[in-house]
Amino acid sequence: MTTNSSTSPPPSAPPRSSKRSQSASAIAQSSEVRARVLATARELFVTQGLNGTSVDAIAKASNVKIGTILGLFSNKRELYQACLLVASEELATFRSGLESVLTAKECSPTEMLAETVRFSFRFAREHQLAIRLVQRSAIAVSDEERLTNEQVYAAADGLSELLGRIQPQSPQALRFAGRSISTLVARYALASEREIEALLGLEGRDSAETNAALERYVVEAAARLLGFRPAA
Amino acid sequence: MTTNSSTSPPPSAPPRSSKRSQSASAIAQSSEVRARVLATARELFVTQGLNGTSVDAIAKASNVKIGTILGLFSNKRELYQACLLVASEELATFRSGLESVLTAKECSPTEMLAETVRFSFRFAREHQLAIRLVQRSAIAVSDEERLTNEQVYAAADGLSELLGRIQPQSPQALRFAGRSISTLVARYALASEREIEALLGLEGRDSAETNAALERYVVEAAARLLGFRPAA
Repeated sequence: MTTNSSTSPPPSAPPRSSKRSQSASAIAQSSEVRARVLATARELFVTQGLNGTSVDAIAKASNVKIGTILGLFSNKRELYQACLLVASEELATFRSGLESVLTAKECSPTEMLAETVRFSFRFAREHQLAIRLVQRSAIAVSDEERLTNEQVYAAADGLSELLGRIQPQSPQALRFAGRSISTLVARYALASEREIEALLGLEGRDSAETNAALERYVVEAAARLLGFRPAA
Repeated sequence: MTTNSSTSPPPSAPPRSSKRSQSASAIAQSSEVRARVLATARELFVTQGLNGTSVDAIAKASNVKIGTILGLFSNKRELYQACLLVASEELATFRSGLESVLTAKECSPTEMLAETVRFSFRFAREHQLAIRLVQRSAIAVSDEERLTNEQVYAAADGLSELLGRIQPQSPQALRFAGRSISTLVARYALASEREIEALLGLEGRDSAETNAALERYVVEAAARLLGFRPAA
């Protein structure tokens, strides 16, 4: 809000286009600053934790004045909650992305499941930081670091719903399968390349090959968890 | 060490049994203090993270002088590593415990797997704090918070080896099954009662019933992951 927002301009006032575009650019700038602060804060919260990260450290790392940060977020807790919200929103795009992949194809249940798991796995790889923040928050014992169950499990429950179209079963079994599959997808998407190479006995192969092999393992695990007959 | 340890006692010195027992009790006391510091530190590291926990906070919470703590561990990093080591050692008892459960019984592969998973699940429930610390460390991006792969996956790899006796398959497939099953066991063992009730549609039931139902789901998931034919 501008300082004179409470007084209406006189009817004869000159057009305020220059003022308006100035304030539009100020808004754009402040939203850019906000995004930068959030991205930096998220990275620090993931690596250092809520208690290990100070607003001062976020200010230094984002190159934004501490006063500006505290003008945008009243304190560190609020900034942390904003980071969690951004991460949840980012992960919430999972479901619509998956829907559009699936509706674009006509295929057998087995192939549909494979597409679903491959999409989930790639999505998890591309959103590692958001997943780490949400996981950290789910492990956290303190309430202030915690997300609500709905936020943590939104992606898993979106997956359950889609799995039900592939292999109908009881709501409990579907929820359990959705959470189990998304737990494994996240676990392997966050694994280091070294762990995966050692796990699959592929030391020294190129990472595309390792990654493709891991994807096949995860797809097979999901098929088994969903009750498809295991591939011989 | 006592202050006069560098001067040998005169030949006619009286028997030092009282002194000896005094020093034995001092050792016992210091090992009790060490254990108390480690237990307090672990709890704080799990809830507040490495960076969010000061030696001062550990001193206050354990009611041990900060100088005493720094006499036992030269700094916070060393204390954190000691906590991780205790947690790894605690989790390493998993394998011997499981061995003794399995060798005590003669049963079918299906029943042997069920015993294995039930034992793993109960073990994980009883060692939640150690698992949270190890998981936190596995999620951590900073190297100093990290455990080596061998420490993180010791229990999972012990499980893989035992699974191989139940259902022989390639080493890669066994390692993948072992890590996947232990990931799910840990995930559900750490889940809140509220999540489990909502997941299984058992809101308001008593916790023994919820727990038994969850155990059945986890056993079934493990059987499927290992390639047993799904129960109809």
